[in-house]
Amino acid sequence: MSTMSRTEISALGEFGLIHRLTKDIQPQQPSTEKGIGDDAAVMNHGDKRSLVTTDLLLEGIHFNLEYVPLKHLGYKAAVVNFSDIYAMNGKPTQIVVSLGISKRFAVEDLEALYSGIRLACEKYGVDLVGGDTCASMTGLTISITCIGEAKKEDIVYRNGAKENDLICVTGNLGAAYLGLQLLERERIALRGNENATPNFEGKEYLLERQLKPEARKDIIEQLHKAGIHPTAMMDISDGLSSELMHICRQSGVGCAVYEDKIPINYEAAVQAEEMNLNIVTCALNGGEDYELIFTCSISDYEKLIPLDDVYIVGHILKPEAGMKLVGRNGEELALKAQGWQAFA
Amino acid sequence: MSTMSRTEISALGEFGLIHRLTKDIQPQQPSTEKGIGDDAAVMNHGDKRSLVTTDLLLEGIHFNLEYVPLKHLGYKAAVVNFSDIYAMNGKPTQIVVSLGISKRFAVEDLEALYSGIRLACEKYGVDLVGGDTCASMTGLTISITCIGEAKKEDIVYRNGAKENDLICVTGNLGAAYLGLQLLERERIALRGNENATPNFEGKEYLLERQLKPEARKDIIEQLHKAGIHPTAMMDISDGLSSELMHICRQSGVGCAVYEDKIPINYEAAVQAEEMNLNIVTCALNGGEDYELIFTCSISDYEKLIPLDDVYIVGHILKPEAGMKLVGRNGEELALKAQGWQAFA
Repeated sequence: MSTMSRTEISALGEFGLIHRLTKDIQPQQPSTEKGIGDDAAVMNHGDKRSLVTTDLLLEGIHFNLEYVPLKHLGYKAAVVNFSDIYAMNGKPTQIVVSLGISKRFAVEDLEALYSGIRLACEKYGVDLVGGDTCASMTGLTISITCIGEAKKEDIVYRNGAKENDLICVTGNLGAAYLGLQLLERERIALRGNENATPNFEGKEYLLERQLKPEARKDIIEQLHKAGIHPTAMMDISDGLSSELMHICRQSGVGCAVYEDKIPINYEAAVQAEEMNLNIVTCALNGGEDYELIFTCSISDYEKLIPLDDVYIVGHILKPEAGMKLVGRNGEELALKAQGWQAFA
Repeated sequence: MSTMSRTEISALGEFGLIHRLTKDIQPQQPSTEKGIGDDAAVMNHGDKRSLVTTDLLLEGIHFNLEYVPLKHLGYKAAVVNFSDIYAMNGKPTQIVVSLGISKRFAVEDLEALYSGIRLACEKYGVDLVGGDTCASMTGLTISITCIGEAKKEDIVYRNGAKENDLICVTGNLGAAYLGLQLLERERIALRGNENATPNFEGKEYLLERQLKPEARKDIIEQLHKAGIHPTAMMDISDGLSSELMHICRQSGVGCAVYEDKIPINYEAAVQAEEMNLNIVTCALNGGEDYELIFTCSISDYEKLIPLDDVYIVGHILKPEAGMKLVGRNGEELALKAQGWQAFA
């Protein structure tokens, strides 16, 4: 690994690194319709399109087996991939699962992990069609690739947001992050006391958001029924700020998001208060909510209102207006993505 | 990870483990044509089929960065996936690449890795369409999923071998394993002597087979031109014995392989002699050759003879005959797969 010059990965960050590695890749295959840069790649098979997305989960980075049960981990690992396919307005159909496993795992542990993967597959109607299983020197590695399908005209990319479009989010934001903070706090508090059990009474919702997230299949179905075709869409895995900035940059537009419109769960707000955290910051930067953010034409407003669990949080502006958060008193702040700092 | 009973993974082995985890999975999606159990899964998109395969490579298990240059590693990681698609008689078209990387890697290291992946993509006409890049606590993790395409009638599975079919292999076998032994020997010999350079003069071919394998796209093209449709096919990643046993078990047949017909490279034979290894054992159990093994009807014999780099090594028998290796003096031995012992 001797190199002439050495640039630390932290100097570029995740997106800078990916850009540097992939910037001049030119697709050659006629079936490649969309490559790097969205929630999933798109392949052309005649009138149908297939979608492909992949996620790598590493022990110690993405999960901590001290508090994540293996069954939940399997469920979440599958669901986060389904979420990427829904975020393209597609339907997940197949997954392949690769596992790197060390000797400390027993067959029963892997059965628990697989039972979670299979539960997710059953619930979302997805087939587990293959994979690779191998030994690992260190922790548990889970790599899942999901295949999906969609009609050409249904696919929604990140780059279609237009001036005056409405910005919508689903569910509520920040709760998964607070669930993680809670688990971490208890882990540290109970360290060295193996017989103690943490008391999570009244916090079940926050834990569920962190440990057993769901992908918003129901929203995709609602949009379809209502005849709404979003102009841009993503799933919210890194926090609202980061995802909205992706949509604005790729669409070449600005935006305004209203702080008081961001949907917050009551238990999450209480927990943030207790932990002395700003709940809006948790919603903007927390991540792992796996809700959807989409933009749609203002002419869809009437169709949007009856939808369950969909909230209008702002609108798209000219690019010159920048990307801003409008506070409760009308003050404007520039949106910032704290997002992914793992290499820092 | 407390479980009521604990079964060690080594008690089941790789295939036993996969069987236990996946045995009662029933596909639900109409587009799933073939799930777990072949080189790739098959999805139905009207008259076209798409194929999907995945490989997980972990530092310390699948590669050792002390002697594997990152560019070669990237090249090989891509090519081994292409090989699985060719083994279905398909054409690889897209890959997604996930990397788990620790801080000891610089941007330049990842550029080297990617340059190898991209070189492989250019050579085989495959598009890199997505992936996931994240931090790792420990070593380098590479997960690649490859998508391919084929016409329905062209796809070759493992389970179609029939009594009297010819068994063919391509290229030569055992050289990749000897290349690995050579690299390991030199690594140990030079340990603690950082300025010494190993002398690999005259061994270049063996190193290339280990460090820069190729997928047999050319063979698939030759078979197509010759109008030969194999009855069963696999790529040889775990050694001839293991792969042939998969074909026989899945096809419900027996086989005879003739020791003196197995194609061996001269340099490999010399190296085996020098290392006091049996070259036929290397060919049968060595692995990582990424050649193809296929069976075809005896009526294709005339078409088979003119093909370049294809060798008939035996034939398919009734299931009662078992799976046997016929030695140079006519003695018969039962085929054994030493294969994958990583959990032992």
